[in-house]
Amino acid sequence: MGSIPKIVILGAGYGGILTAQNLQKALRHKEAEVTLVNRHDYHYITTHLHMPAAGTDSIEHARVSISGLIDGSRVDFVKSTVQAIKLDEKKVILDQGSLDFDYLVLGLGGEPETFGIPGMLENALTIRSINSVRLIRDHISYQLAMYKNDGNPARLTFVVGGAGFTGIEFVAELADRLPILCREYDIHPQDIKIINVEAAPTALPGFDPELVEYAMDVLKGKGVTFRIGVPIKECLADGVIIGEGEKIPAGMVVWTGGIRGNHVIEEAGLEVMRGRVKADEYLRAPGHDHVYVIGDNSVFMNPEGRPYPPTAQIAMQQGAVCARNIAAAIHGKEPQKFKFSNKGTVASLGRGEAVAVVGGRKIKGWVAAQLKKIVDIRYLFIIGGIPLVLKKGRFF
Amino acid sequence: MGSIPKIVILGAGYGGILTAQNLQKALRHKEAEVTLVNRHDYHYITTHLHMPAAGTDSIEHARVSISGLIDGSRVDFVKSTVQAIKLDEKKVILDQGSLDFDYLVLGLGGEPETFGIPGMLENALTIRSINSVRLIRDHISYQLAMYKNDGNPARLTFVVGGAGFTGIEFVAELADRLPILCREYDIHPQDIKIINVEAAPTALPGFDPELVEYAMDVLKGKGVTFRIGVPIKECLADGVIIGEGEKIPAGMVVWTGGIRGNHVIEEAGLEVMRGRVKADEYLRAPGHDHVYVIGDNSVFMNPEGRPYPPTAQIAMQQGAVCARNIAAAIHGKEPQKFKFSNKGTVASLGRGEAVAVVGGRKIKGWVAAQLKKIVDIRYLFIIGGIPLVLKKGRFF
Repeated sequence: MGSIPKIVILGAGYGGILTAQNLQKALRHKEAEVTLVNRHDYHYITTHLHMPAAGTDSIEHARVSISGLIDGSRVDFVKSTVQAIKLDEKKVILDQGSLDFDYLVLGLGGEPETFGIPGMLENALTIRSINSVRLIRDHISYQLAMYKNDGNPARLTFVVGGAGFTGIEFVAELADRLPILCREYDIHPQDIKIINVEAAPTALPGFDPELVEYAMDVLKGKGVTFRIGVPIKECLADGVIIGEGEKIPAGMVVWTGGIRGNHVIEEAGLEVMRGRVKADEYLRAPGHDHVYVIGDNSVFMNPEGRPYPPTAQIAMQQGAVCARNIAAAIHGKEPQKFKFSNKGTVASLGRGEAVAVVGGRKIKGWVAAQLKKIVDIRYLFIIGGIPLVLKKGRFF
Repeated sequence: MGSIPKIVILGAGYGGILTAQNLQKALRHKEAEVTLVNRHDYHYITTHLHMPAAGTDSIEHARVSISGLIDGSRVDFVKSTVQAIKLDEKKVILDQGSLDFDYLVLGLGGEPETFGIPGMLENALTIRSINSVRLIRDHISYQLAMYKNDGNPARLTFVVGGAGFTGIEFVAELADRLPILCREYDIHPQDIKIINVEAAPTALPGFDPELVEYAMDVLKGKGVTFRIGVPIKECLADGVIIGEGEKIPAGMVVWTGGIRGNHVIEEAGLEVMRGRVKADEYLRAPGHDHVYVIGDNSVFMNPEGRPYPPTAQIAMQQGAVCARNIAAAIHGKEPQKFKFSNKGTVASLGRGEAVAVVGGRKIKGWVAAQLKKIVDIRYLFIIGGIPLVLKKGRFF
């Protein structure tokens, strides 16, 4: 590499933004050419999307302009969609043009995993982008408006598939939001049904059972019906078929039941497990020392050999280490092994309620809800400092 | 009639509310039993519905709770839908129960007239009630949200059928509203199309040609495309077929092309012209001296023998005279002939623009727009005094 090395970061999610920001710090001026590629000119705060989806917070609180997050003199930004990755040619094909790379960071994020459930891809909505949650928000009010014109009671049934973190957090916001919408649309709140369907034997699989019970009690108190241990067999345009063939007519089905990797990564010829690349201890794709995989595009194993769940937290930590390791490679230094440091987990349960595990301690209720806000604000501070906290933070 | 006479007013529109309020004044306590029947527990300001339909004003500014408009000790209010009118039995059948009457006032309002255009009833939205305009408002944003997910450009085409007062006023609000929505939904305003289709040879038929031209120029300047003298041949789920078979793919079709009378009135066995009863000079249905017809349920002829257009203005004046004539009948006095007094006409063209004819004078632009606000505020004052003006009035 005689000339300046080219670093291309695909995706401006948690991992990609942290990689870009840390590269800005770790590299001297003109030491490398860093290009960040993203489909939109904004970064979105995925862990916050359940709120604008339900309409309990504004869309603008869930996204940040990328130009405000990176130093344009150090990192180039290209707004484009990645079509293909040519690993042998060290080239990325975009919808308009292409980019050569010496180092590649794969942080394109995941795609909904529907496990082949018939009709799910076609008929269900998903919480995965600003555009998709805006559609959910508008779909909810559209159903209420339609109900007031055609009287079809199924329009007032809202089904959420999946009771993982996203499903539970979204259901909680829905339960907070719908009574307010009912007043606006002259609908009796008792006529609304919110049904959360989960195939696994428990809600929030992997989470502390005592907190799971607390969470379900809070949500039941808000009017949510749980169907736990019941699989969705089929998603229709007007409802779902669950369990042994029971049909639930519904005006909306939101699928939160799974995330897989990215089809672009699979098609690149990398070895994947459900669309994710099993990263080595330096976050590199096996056999491709110049290709780093982070966030939902990677699978990283814990010391017991089981994959860590794909969270914002791990993606951010991976972004920082990935940047350090690319800088080390350029500087001819030793890379650093990635080690996940678990800061804890918080699941919001709507206004004033949450459950959390921090440092082995269980926290619930109002205190946990404040913790959730602190986690969100801490993230805004990390990526954008005080100005971003003041602009996008939710304090109340 | 030995006992107290029973007066039943069907419909709490412009005519019905004015009848009820004037009866309160004209009759002494216990002189009659007055019952007002309406489908909703609120009165809506039909001439204002084009704004919440486009989302340029709130729904709440277009409706008023009926309990705030009538004196509950003088007029009973029944929230119910009229199923049938049995003129011979002097009985009104409601969806729950029935009411006997000695005097009946028909002010049920009109229904959309689609002139048998195929698919119009099934596929087009209409500006006729709080529920219907809420659906239009939500349908607009739903199309924008869908576009950002499926990229179908037809979703950004909005067709309004009919360029009468409602059509023109609604198109103007749409043209004001869509650029704002475009910013919210990350859509280029140039990608939006607003098309106003009118079969008649001119927009605003019957209005002053100079003002029609001015109105069209204002709206063209806001990006509206006119197809005047072109009939809609069919309304589809995904657009319209116009003229000689040209298809306009569209995400929304709003039909404002006509109003007819009410099917309940037709089914009552009264002689009707397009669902409207030709009222006698005292506002009574021919051959039924105890049945009064007002507003969109009636046709009233001008001195040249042509029907007056059905407006809020004429309905209000009819309500006042109708009340006076019922009181006269009860008091054994002579009824009064109805004479329409034209206070003028204003058509709003969106923010800061309107056209008006008042006392034969043509007024356009900002002054006409202020006039429109004054007309609206005057109406709020008539039905609810200063408190209602302060609560629902738009001053800016």
